[in-house]
Amino acid sequence: MHTNTANERVRIFCPATIANVSCGFDVLGVALAGVGDHMLISRSTKKGIRITKITGQDLPLDPHENVAGVAALALLDHLNSNAGFEIEIYKKIKAGSGIGSSAASSAGAVWGINYLLGSPLSPQQLIPFAMEGERLASGVAHADNVAPALLGGFTLVRSSNPLDVVCLPSPSELYATVIHPQIEIKTADSRRILKTNISLTDGIKQWGNLGALVAGLFKEDYPLIGRSLEDVIVEPVRSILIPGFDLIKKAALDAGALGCGISGSGPSVFAFSKGAEKAKEVATAIQAAYTPLDIPFELHLSKINPQGVCLEKA
Amino acid sequence: MHTNTANERVRIFCPATIANVSCGFDVLGVALAGVGDHMLISRSTKKGIRITKITGQDLPLDPHENVAGVAALALLDHLNSNAGFEIEIYKKIKAGSGIGSSAASSAGAVWGINYLLGSPLSPQQLIPFAMEGERLASGVAHADNVAPALLGGFTLVRSSNPLDVVCLPSPSELYATVIHPQIEIKTADSRRILKTNISLTDGIKQWGNLGALVAGLFKEDYPLIGRSLEDVIVEPVRSILIPGFDLIKKAALDAGALGCGISGSGPSVFAFSKGAEKAKEVATAIQAAYTPLDIPFELHLSKINPQGVCLEKA
Repeated sequence: MHTNTANERVRIFCPATIANVSCGFDVLGVALAGVGDHMLISRSTKKGIRITKITGQDLPLDPHENVAGVAALALLDHLNSNAGFEIEIYKKIKAGSGIGSSAASSAGAVWGINYLLGSPLSPQQLIPFAMEGERLASGVAHADNVAPALLGGFTLVRSSNPLDVVCLPSPSELYATVIHPQIEIKTADSRRILKTNISLTDGIKQWGNLGALVAGLFKEDYPLIGRSLEDVIVEPVRSILIPGFDLIKKAALDAGALGCGISGSGPSVFAFSKGAEKAKEVATAIQAAYTPLDIPFELHLSKINPQGVCLEKA
Repeated sequence: MHTNTANERVRIFCPATIANVSCGFDVLGVALAGVGDHMLISRSTKKGIRITKITGQDLPLDPHENVAGVAALALLDHLNSNAGFEIEIYKKIKAGSGIGSSAASSAGAVWGINYLLGSPLSPQQLIPFAMEGERLASGVAHADNVAPALLGGFTLVRSSNPLDVVCLPSPSELYATVIHPQIEIKTADSRRILKTNISLTDGIKQWGNLGALVAGLFKEDYPLIGRSLEDVIVEPVRSILIPGFDLIKKAALDAGALGCGISGSGPSVFAFSKGAEKAKEVATAIQAAYTPLDIPFELHLSKINPQGVCLEKA
């Protein structure tokens, strides 16, 4: 771990993330390269955390009510640090989009402060503090989004308690197309509609698919990744909350996407493709299919981000 | 695929296999190097299959009632072949042991005949015919054991219908210690006691563990393999049928095994260790723990078999 005592401020990119990823409900996540927030974190002579600016979203500046602030304070508390920091947040990821808006801010805050303190902790070690931001956002301190946001690529949360996060490889030609229909689904609501019990048969299908997806990532076997992107448990229930989900999925698969599913708890829907060209075709197909619904939407197209939160070029 | 028309007979080793492998219920299997049957398969001028000799077990010679015969006939039928073969089976794996006795015979029969016919099919393509042997043995044409028996190493059955089998790597220092308590558990019985439904929470734990186990095999990360060898769904129920299961597991883990679980539907119990030395210590510990129970048992110690069914050295 190198020391950056000379740095007084850091400008960082905080990636959007897709959690669950079809068969990986509650365990899998992946970071995006082309979608994310920006943060500027500066050392201050005043102890503690101050959020001095937020653009792009209407979010509280009080650090105890802001996920970045809560995560940052948890880190400083753990380090028993008397240091002080000012945070500026430039939100690009919309809150409630299902692509890890709160995770980007939480992960960015702890990553930036750790960097300015000379990197006393590894990105893996930062995860629990970023999770505190998630606890504020959704009531559950889950790592599905903050783990890929901090570590990059695909991550698998084998266990939350004790925390055990496994880094998986990111096939170099894998691209994500994400559509964000501008409707609101509360994470709490989308949790509530899940069934408490599942059939053993469905469970076997799900873990067979997840095991195969992990193998596909290691082998860079794109057809296998595609065959494994199947969710027999959560998607059939949650997709009901996303108007036009079936249209999006059909359009994506017909256009040659490897697979398509709900990003996090929605409403965003992701499709994976092999290669940027195909991902673009998939975006065009989704756009054509969704436009008639008269629901405003945003489309993102992104390579997988192998790195996680990172310094921005000056 | 090379042609072996010159060969009139083939002597093969048919490995024992561990199915399920803790968190991989109904999808995972692994082949063993040090435990298995032997078969001698010869071309015959008489069309069809004749089983001319079986040693080590009291099994039917009628090919329609013998798993090797049924598998062989299914293959010949598919190939529309007029060829004839005589099969001698030297059983070392006890029927009902839970380490793939029927799978070894089924896989061996189709592998040997395919070899003598000049290898028209790949080992992957042979799986469905070997599965017909499993259908005779247990009523279910599952691939958990025949896939690793034919392909070697660890295999994951992503889907049975359509069949989709994924080969996983075999870490070079991974060893299995297997104890076979000489009691009878019928596969049908051990299926019957399984619950039809599981909690979503347990499902998440299981697929988190399976995903991590697959990653551990690719990374050769032995501690990760160990942490992932946890079965929260089937083991708590089935282990009740295996007297002394908890004793075996405690002895294995205390002796430093990476993990320990039920092999197939039992009664055999396997433990994985890093290195032959450790696997031997684990065997000693299991033996010491189990001897007071006054239940006869066999102990096997084996490296993982990366190859599956293979020619025996002359």
